[in-house]
Amino acid sequence: MPVNFTESTDLKPIAGVRLNSICAGIKRTDRDDVTLFEFIEGTTFAAVFTKNAFCAAPVEIAKQHLQRANPRFWLINSGNANAGTGETGKDNAKRCCSSVSILGKCEQFQVLPFSTGVIGQPLPIEKIESILPDLLEGLNKQHWLKAARAIMTTDTLSKGVSREIILNGKTVTITGIAKGAGMIRPDMATMLAFIATDAKIETPILQECLKQAVEKSFNRITIDGDTSTNDSCILAATGKSGVFINDENRETFQTTLEEVCIYLAQSIVRDGEGATKFITIEVLKGKTEQECLEVAYTIAHSPLVKTAFFASDANWGRILAAVGRSGVENLDLNAVEIYLNNVCIVRNGGRAIEYTEEQGHQAMSPAEIVVQIYLHRGISNTQVWTCDFSYDYVRINAEYRT
Amino acid sequence: MPVNFTESTDLKPIAGVRLNSICAGIKRTDRDDVTLFEFIEGTTFAAVFTKNAFCAAPVEIAKQHLQRANPRFWLINSGNANAGTGETGKDNAKRCCSSVSILGKCEQFQVLPFSTGVIGQPLPIEKIESILPDLLEGLNKQHWLKAARAIMTTDTLSKGVSREIILNGKTVTITGIAKGAGMIRPDMATMLAFIATDAKIETPILQECLKQAVEKSFNRITIDGDTSTNDSCILAATGKSGVFINDENRETFQTTLEEVCIYLAQSIVRDGEGATKFITIEVLKGKTEQECLEVAYTIAHSPLVKTAFFASDANWGRILAAVGRSGVENLDLNAVEIYLNNVCIVRNGGRAIEYTEEQGHQAMSPAEIVVQIYLHRGISNTQVWTCDFSYDYVRINAEYRT
Repeated sequence: MPVNFTESTDLKPIAGVRLNSICAGIKRTDRDDVTLFEFIEGTTFAAVFTKNAFCAAPVEIAKQHLQRANPRFWLINSGNANAGTGETGKDNAKRCCSSVSILGKCEQFQVLPFSTGVIGQPLPIEKIESILPDLLEGLNKQHWLKAARAIMTTDTLSKGVSREIILNGKTVTITGIAKGAGMIRPDMATMLAFIATDAKIETPILQECLKQAVEKSFNRITIDGDTSTNDSCILAATGKSGVFINDENRETFQTTLEEVCIYLAQSIVRDGEGATKFITIEVLKGKTEQECLEVAYTIAHSPLVKTAFFASDANWGRILAAVGRSGVENLDLNAVEIYLNNVCIVRNGGRAIEYTEEQGHQAMSPAEIVVQIYLHRGISNTQVWTCDFSYDYVRINAEYRT
Repeated sequence: MPVNFTESTDLKPIAGVRLNSICAGIKRTDRDDVTLFEFIEGTTFAAVFTKNAFCAAPVEIAKQHLQRANPRFWLINSGNANAGTGETGKDNAKRCCSSVSILGKCEQFQVLPFSTGVIGQPLPIEKIESILPDLLEGLNKQHWLKAARAIMTTDTLSKGVSREIILNGKTVTITGIAKGAGMIRPDMATMLAFIATDAKIETPILQECLKQAVEKSFNRITIDGDTSTNDSCILAATGKSGVFINDENRETFQTTLEEVCIYLAQSIVRDGEGATKFITIEVLKGKTEQECLEVAYTIAHSPLVKTAFFASDANWGRILAAVGRSGVENLDLNAVEIYLNNVCIVRNGGRAIEYTEEQGHQAMSPAEIVVQIYLHRGISNTQVWTCDFSYDYVRINAEYRT
């Protein structure tokens, strides 16, 4: 069960974007699995892709196509990741783009492919091609929720959000959808996020905005530390609101974009497999943000810390040991303070004098826990979000691929 | 249940070493928990300690004492790690050494303290002091198995081994005992290994021998990636065999020492918490041993790979994705080959053409699995040993500390 999370059904359309989803029967015949986004001419784009050296065919093709021209379409399928499929996989991704381009009257490289699902099986390209005419026929501004549901794989709920702001006296809207974190399940790979706005933004600035927002959101979550082969986040700006983003209004736009990305990123953690707790790890007063991040991720990836969260066990020794092995140079453990939901559990390198196990157990019981680690050696801070490690994580990931 | 592992009861005594274990009731009253080793004068020593910045009081004191003189005694307690105990912890560790030194007629700094067990609770020093006279009284060459059992915490079986070799026409013996890997259980910290030989070796060479052996054994195992606060491995050479280790016979001695360390290290993995499989990960034909290690540990620490091993699921996508995210620069995934128990599952960056799921499931079914990753970009090789990730791992680690 997701942690304090419900589906957002009120997703605002973005002027200049039409979309549609349909069932091609890629893996199941009872749900939509192919989605198409169409963008008005003049739309600008920014994208961030997985750093995994083993990246999927659609990721390679999408990167190539983005180099050549501004896209007109995004084609997304769930049920098959088209990863570990070699040259055939790339040919299949290209052929999908080609088929869309013929029907959609654009160049092949103006279509970006995205895939998510089982690794290592050939993409059933005929199934996808057969539904493309209907998919284009049904393009509609209102289909964001339909799309959010169609890109799901092992997600239990769809993830989407809209934000509106007034800039230069006009309304600017950002709507985004996303799916499943990390390598969630046997052969299921991929975190995908698709975001659009009707603001008008030049490509280099849009790329900067996205990069900065991703750094504060999708790059601050972890379920199990396993970077997927297909991770992609892409942002389109149609310009149809008539609001040009410039030095004056950029900060407001950036803040709102970050809100959207953080909402989507946190949704992914709240719906992480087997998650029973949503955990915020704040590392404070470090020398650099990098060292804060190292400490935060060492804690967030420790199976021992994560099982303690599952058990609501305020096992401060495990947290302190994780801080100790995080590789931060010349760390003075005696300066470290650790708080769980505002209860000080560690001070001066040992259990805080006033701390009782009863307090610790109470602090660990809620479904939302904030862990604060004060390093007390600088002015840098960071935070990451993660979930606990439960029996269900093992169950979900141990089930044979079927 | 440990994986293909039974207790070795035939541990050879080492001339010049006497030992004894006794129950002080530190955590439980039905088992030995304090152990003393006594060494003849002239014994040389080598030691390797945890790199965790949050290291336990006895580790700090043992390091200090080793700087000052060759030890005469090692004092080891289980049931309490004396970690996260601040200045009081160090005072307690020193006081134990002092009490032994008075009874044993040596300097305080000739006693090395070791502790393993619950973190953050004060060491019950009176209990330990009260049994010291009996402990010294009962010192005996034969008590290695008794000691191997007394240093256990959550280990299900004791771990020990002896090897004999003929050097210069005389028998040289090495006997070692060890306990529990990583941060095994709520508040249980520590991998401890105590090894002794009757060979005669100068301190700098002994330290080199141990460092090299540890690099190939204890530094090649992982249960959950959580480095303990108390990890220590110490080696004593009494010289009583009359065999001096020199350039001629050093290689044979080294090989035998490595056999002892590898046996103990593998025992720890075989008895890892919740382990149902013993997994050897070999990374071959890399540019450097370091990059081979990075790949091996990324695989060994991936919760997704470990749950797949538990499920006997030959999920090659997860293994390949772990290779891809291991951070090796300019890695050509198309050159990578992956074998599971000699079945080729991945070639040219995708599923091997001849491979069938049936073969994969068969290769994953035994309790012992060898994973071979060929990087095909150099001549360096390495291997690490790990276990799978089961429901029992979560159960053991989620149980509230009691």
